[in-house]
Amino acid sequence: MCERSGLKIAVLGGGSSYTPELVEGLIKGYEEMPVAEIWLVDIEAGKRKLDIVGNLAKRMVRKAGPPIQVHLTLNRREAIRDADFVLTQMRVGMLEARRLDEHIPIRHGVIGQETTGPGGMFKALRTIPVILEICRDIEELAPNAWMLNFTNPAGMITEAVQKYSRVRTIGLCNSPINFKKSLAAVYNVPEEKVLPEFVGINHLHWVTSALVDGEEVLSELLAGEGGEYTAANVPTFGWDPEFLQSLSAVPTYYLKYFYMQDEMLGEMKESLEQNGTRADIVSRVEKELFELYEDETLEEKPKQLEQRGGAYYSEAAVRLMQSLYLGSNDIQTLNVANSGIYDFLPADSSIEVNCVVSSGGPIPLVPRYVPSHIKGLLHAVKTYERLVIEAAATGDRALALQALVHHPLVPSASTAKVLLNEMLEAHRQYLPNFFA
Amino acid sequence: MCERSGLKIAVLGGGSSYTPELVEGLIKGYEEMPVAEIWLVDIEAGKRKLDIVGNLAKRMVRKAGPPIQVHLTLNRREAIRDADFVLTQMRVGMLEARRLDEHIPIRHGVIGQETTGPGGMFKALRTIPVILEICRDIEELAPNAWMLNFTNPAGMITEAVQKYSRVRTIGLCNSPINFKKSLAAVYNVPEEKVLPEFVGINHLHWVTSALVDGEEVLSELLAGEGGEYTAANVPTFGWDPEFLQSLSAVPTYYLKYFYMQDEMLGEMKESLEQNGTRADIVSRVEKELFELYEDETLEEKPKQLEQRGGAYYSEAAVRLMQSLYLGSNDIQTLNVANSGIYDFLPADSSIEVNCVVSSGGPIPLVPRYVPSHIKGLLHAVKTYERLVIEAAATGDRALALQALVHHPLVPSASTAKVLLNEMLEAHRQYLPNFFA
Amino acid sequence: MCERSGLKIAVLGGGSSYTPELVEGLIKGYEEMPVAEIWLVDIEAGKRKLDIVGNLAKRMVRKAGPPIQVHLTLNRREAIRDADFVLTQMRVGMLEARRLDEHIPIRHGVIGQETTGPGGMFKALRTIPVILEICRDIEELAPNAWMLNFTNPAGMITEAVQKYSRVRTIGLCNSPINFKKSLAAVYNVPEEKVLPEFVGINHLHWVTSALVDGEEVLSELLAGEGGEYTAANVPTFGWDPEFLQSLSAVPTYYLKYFYMQDEMLGEMKESLEQNGTRADIVSRVEKELFELYEDETLEEKPKQLEQRGGAYYSEAAVRLMQSLYLGSNDIQTLNVANSGIYDFLPADSSIEVNCVVSSGGPIPLVPRYVPSHIKGLLHAVKTYERLVIEAAATGDRALALQALVHHPLVPSASTAKVLLNEMLEAHRQYLPNFFA
Amino acid sequence: MCERSGLKIAVLGGGSSYTPELVEGLIKGYEEMPVAEIWLVDIEAGKRKLDIVGNLAKRMVRKAGPPIQVHLTLNRREAIRDADFVLTQMRVGMLEARRLDEHIPIRHGVIGQETTGPGGMFKALRTIPVILEICRDIEELAPNAWMLNFTNPAGMITEAVQKYSRVRTIGLCNSPINFKKSLAAVYNVPEEKVLPEFVGINHLHWVTSALVDGEEVLSELLAGEGGEYTAANVPTFGWDPEFLQSLSAVPTYYLKYFYMQDEMLGEMKESLEQNGTRADIVSRVEKELFELYEDETLEEKPKQLEQRGGAYYSEAAVRLMQSLYLGSNDIQTLNVANSGIYDFLPADSSIEVNCVVSSGGPIPLVPRYVPSHIKGLLHAVKTYERLVIEAAATGDRALALQALVHHPLVPSASTAKVLLNEMLEAHRQYLPNFFA
Repeated sequence: MCERSGLKIAVLGGGSSYTPELVEGLIKGYEEMPVAEIWLVDIEAGKRKLDIVGNLAKRMVRKAGPPIQVHLTLNRREAIRDADFVLTQMRVGMLEARRLDEHIPIRHGVIGQETTGPGGMFKALRTIPVILEICRDIEELAPNAWMLNFTNPAGMITEAVQKYSRVRTIGLCNSPINFKKSLAAVYNVPEEKVLPEFVGINHLHWVTSALVDGEEVLSELLAGEGGEYTAANVPTFGWDPEFLQSLSAVPTYYLKYFYMQDEMLGEMKESLEQNGTRADIVSRVEKELFELYEDETLEEKPKQLEQRGGAYYSEAAVRLMQSLYLGSNDIQTLNVANSGIYDFLPADSSIEVNCVVSSGGPIPLVPRYVPSHIKGLLHAVKTYERLVIEAAATGDRALALQALVHHPLVPSASTAKVLLNEMLEAHRQYLPNFFA
Repeated sequence: MCERSGLKIAVLGGGSSYTPELVEGLIKGYEEMPVAEIWLVDIEAGKRKLDIVGNLAKRMVRKAGPPIQVHLTLNRREAIRDADFVLTQMRVGMLEARRLDEHIPIRHGVIGQETTGPGGMFKALRTIPVILEICRDIEELAPNAWMLNFTNPAGMITEAVQKYSRVRTIGLCNSPINFKKSLAAVYNVPEEKVLPEFVGINHLHWVTSALVDGEEVLSELLAGEGGEYTAANVPTFGWDPEFLQSLSAVPTYYLKYFYMQDEMLGEMKESLEQNGTRADIVSRVEKELFELYEDETLEEKPKQLEQRGGAYYSEAAVRLMQSLYLGSNDIQTLNVANSGIYDFLPADSSIEVNCVVSSGGPIPLVPRYVPSHIKGLLHAVKTYERLVIEAAATGDRALALQALVHHPLVPSASTAKVLLNEMLEAHRQYLPNFFA
Repeated sequence: MCERSGLKIAVLGGGSSYTPELVEGLIKGYEEMPVAEIWLVDIEAGKRKLDIVGNLAKRMVRKAGPPIQVHLTLNRREAIRDADFVLTQMRVGMLEARRLDEHIPIRHGVIGQETTGPGGMFKALRTIPVILEICRDIEELAPNAWMLNFTNPAGMITEAVQKYSRVRTIGLCNSPINFKKSLAAVYNVPEEKVLPEFVGINHLHWVTSALVDGEEVLSELLAGEGGEYTAANVPTFGWDPEFLQSLSAVPTYYLKYFYMQDEMLGEMKESLEQNGTRADIVSRVEKELFELYEDETLEEKPKQLEQRGGAYYSEAAVRLMQSLYLGSNDIQTLNVANSGIYDFLPADSSIEVNCVVSSGGPIPLVPRYVPSHIKGLLHAVKTYERLVIEAAATGDRALALQALVHHPLVPSASTAKVLLNEMLEAHRQYLPNFFA
Repeated sequence: MCERSGLKIAVLGGGSSYTPELVEGLIKGYEEMPVAEIWLVDIEAGKRKLDIVGNLAKRMVRKAGPPIQVHLTLNRREAIRDADFVLTQMRVGMLEARRLDEHIPIRHGVIGQETTGPGGMFKALRTIPVILEICRDIEELAPNAWMLNFTNPAGMITEAVQKYSRVRTIGLCNSPINFKKSLAAVYNVPEEKVLPEFVGINHLHWVTSALVDGEEVLSELLAGEGGEYTAANVPTFGWDPEFLQSLSAVPTYYLKYFYMQDEMLGEMKESLEQNGTRADIVSRVEKELFELYEDETLEEKPKQLEQRGGAYYSEAAVRLMQSLYLGSNDIQTLNVANSGIYDFLPADSSIEVNCVVSSGGPIPLVPRYVPSHIKGLLHAVKTYERLVIEAAATGDRALALQALVHHPLVPSASTAKVLLNEMLEAHRQYLPNFFA
């Protein structure tokens, strides 16, 4: 790791509303990991946001005191050169594209969501070519950097980078850290005392064991016993108890799209008519956030950011950087290559799994138990993901169609075809591979 | 193979309307494979049918001339003792149970069908325990016999036998032989000149290559070129051409349940109201057939049997027995253990694959190409199958629920639960494992 | 874990000369892990040693002060009942049998050694049936106990237990902890700051990465750079530098039997004539140790024990028990089931690998890199091991012959046959399975 | 397949003494497979032999009558252009290099042999770069051609072509066809009535089943029962009966190098002193053959060719071409990619296995049984092969050293190093990759 007087961190999509949280984390962690430079990068269309967020970041650093330089730039290469960490958190097509990812499928009676199904596919199709361009820069300008990817769909993006570049990358999601924190809160123990085991891939994982202070509490979680903490909404997410018992694992809340497809779709349709989708809500929240950020007296992360979602993203990112930097060998849940952990999935597929984070990178742990009943669903979604990744890299329309046809949430080949055509048109400007 | 003056064949479910076709096949093949005894076995409730069909079989043999003895019996063990081949073609719960397998799911908005989904699951739950009892008899009384299984869902039944018994078994379906014959007909070549490659499992397979007289014709099939033969309904089954091209394989018609779920379900609902389901139709056809069979002047298989469905079942069965007996080393498409052919499925899963049929049993051929896009669906359905098999053998309700929840045609865990409860009740008398 | 006022630990082969080291470790670790009872068990033939060692153990505890009860018994079942940990460190046939394991092969021009080759095979053949009897007791009397196995050949014993019993077991060797300690010493950092990655199986492993305080030092180790520490005998063990570079991994010293077969065999032959083999030396050392142990004024582990070999065995054992008890989630190198980590070895094979030790048991880490060139040797030795395990459990002579024939150190089938016959005869009394 | 008035066949190493047998085969098979052109190609140094053999070939065709044109050329590209089949049977370094492959290892106490061990490695190192150059030509000039490779070590050459080129290739050895013919002879049945199953890789295979006219005769073969045919030297090759029984498979005679290493080495050393090695003998035989070939009155293959070894090579080659051309779907034993057949070997490794030969290429059959005891040896030799292939393609000395170190017939790393250095020097002129 190239060391300067400290580390250089490049944040792509630096104008994101999340950035203040990240900056706060880097400030707080300065003692353990001295950061010399933070480079916030964005594209021309995001310049205004970059300026607002970047100036807030500068005020935050100034207030807190550590000798960190904050740079704002539209020049990606300048930011990447010799960076130790490159963080990617950008949103190709911005919230307007997300709106389409959500609205179009729902109008055709299909789950519309930005990380799976047709929506997830199009977010990946837009993002992967951009990420791969970034990888070309990293390969050239910072070949030893770690690229930490927060951009959704994080599993597919990470896998694409590993497949099509030589960049060292790790995918990161806040869902596991959330689970861990909730579990610690419910049992009132420090976070180091809980060890949940995750099985699956990003946004499609199950907790198959939960050790709390030396005791296995999974069956308690599944039974919803213990009163209080079910209210805390952590473990059971309103699942049917008999279903949960028979599953013998706690499903992540994203699994509602699969296990409660009917109900979720009904809710989405209703919501669409009343408040719009998540994109519409986030648009409003972001608008408010940026108004706050513009206030030149603001010198720390505002409380309201917490409503934005993505809780603990920053904490997850800072922890990961620290452990890589320090060689902490602690356990974090990350998106890495399968490497044979699941013998029924290709070795180069990204999975979300507990890892020991060494200075040489994450070393995955083999889950002790993989329930048979989840293998098929896992394989079905991974198949879709692999087709999407290849379609994104090549612009192959047939692959994209097959990806949609075989996604478990798409009810027929004809619906898949209609969705593909309509969404390709809608996102045309962001899909040069498909419209060359 | 124990040889007598000829072979002994036991037919379990001998009172089936299919039996005359089988008997015809054995008569015609007598020269190549001398059969000394055919034992038609049925249960008490099927005695009338057994008598009708059995007497027709006797008349057929008498008319044709070969020295084959036809025995009718309700004593399974007597029939199995020292048999060379045991054919299983029985229907536990008869057509009335099939009716429920079809009606109940459709009423809940789910595909109702006897070989997959909730219907297929309950047919398996009813049949597997009975088959395993038969296996106990074969292990004891005819340990070297080949058990040839026609009973649907053939893939699951075969896998269950391989998992829970030491009986040598092969699963057989008429779908591949049908495809082969159609292909030969379309191209006007003898059947030996066509070699389609099948990928997948029973009732969920794709043709990924079709060699006709030394030429690969797959792309012709997918393009629907060649005019005439598309009318013959062989290759394309009315699939959307763009979809078919992107699939790069010809899907079996059972895949309509998955690729055209919407359309099939709509059709099923409509049909249910007007003519009932397939079970209702078959009931009527069978009634007519047995009236014909009773006619003592009838001495050969009546033409009308062809409407019953299951074309070429008999031919497939007789060919298989002959090749095993003679060691023909010809290629047939059979249900056998995966044995590593698909590295993404468990080694002991049954798959439907081309095999060289030697006197030592079927030797599977490794398909030259497995499209990536079908792996997930294959895995999802196989996961369901494995759970069903284990549930059938153990009576474990949680496994049955998980099987249904994870079947691609079941839209939610709550629907799965409703279906499970209603169907368990409906089939209660045939499910002693679940109601012990 | 059943808790009493503290833990119950049963030590099978309690009369071993190693026991004082273990007892010392338990005394020192009492604060972290309160031990209520230590049960030292031995067989009738070992009674004298058990008394001597046991009385020393009692004196040690009394001197040190913690409320640990030390029990001596010939009744294994009494010791196992409700134990939290069962430690197995016995030697079936004692040193006399080891002598034969070493002498006979060398006389036939084959490496004679107690953990691999013909010697390792016979130690396994003698030990596995005894271990499996013990497992029957544990299954009945202490089903939740962890069985920690030190008995060599530790890999085979562990695999046999996992294959033929339901006992939770972990195999333990002092070689990895030795490497780790040496590495820490060479680089002068605390042990927690080094993380070597081990690839392979017990006594046949390679170090493919060595992180020291955040830096990868493997290439330094391979180059033998850094002067001082090569003298410390840690990394290179006298290997040829070009060979070592091309291997790109540090081989464990047991690999000398394979990579320096010629030289080792020459040395062994020479040594045999002059001082006898290792068994002869250990006999002399043990004699002296027991004379010391008998001294009633001795109240702590004598210095001389360190010459016995097996350094840090006790430390490794105590650490493992503590981590299981406390759920420390630290990294230890253990013998556990492969579970797909090496896709070229069966999933149920024992391997020696870094694990996070949780309260739910060891969770293996996937090595980041497995050199291609070692896979064949690994597979060859594992094949031998699997055959030996099955031969031990069944008494199948043909399997034993095939195991020997296919061991890389046995030069021909005829030599294998000669060795098999001679060694079977020599060990006849310990091999009831073969002479029933 | 491009058809002209008939096929075009290019024979690389056309000046080989084997060529007349091949030409005879093509003449005899003309009815089934019309060959328009045979192009015999050789290098400058082989011109004299090419002329002698080529002229004999022309006389043979003239005498027999079919309209086949025989071309002799030193221009490889001209021969390859639009060829349907490219046959490779050349020997880089000619017999003189083979002599070194045999002599040098034996002098160091190691098996010296041209298809395995150090000798096999150097034959591969010399040949692979030449073969890959040929592949570049085929890719450009005849991309649809089948390259049929006879050149030893056939397994490694085939794997190299599949790894480093897009050429369609099949490796061919006469050992399986020999076994089949012997078996048919022993049992006095036509060859179509025998079906042995081969497990393993080229020159390292075992027969695990032998069906003769519908009966399994393996145990007869292993028992050496049946008197007469053991004399025919087919099945048992002088193996120890107890060893053979425990092996439960008939080993190919090449396995003597591994199972009778001691004895073979002794014999080789003795032979070296008296008659030289196989290379020396073949030199003498070839000299005589070419004297015969030069006789202008000779118009057919001389009887003496049969002493040359390589019996039935020509028959194997012609059969394979015919089956590919006609789509015969018969069973032949060929070297093809593993494709998951052996789950313990990499998917892209070449293996020697029964295949159905379709017009689309060979379709491998999954062996019904793989004895556990042979897996390790298979893996060890395949590991060596893979390292050799990579070393040949890259000129990486470290890989070559590791290949030798890990070959089961090389007793130590130091011997490996000595052999590597001496043999690299000896073959320097043929190893441009290593001496760039």
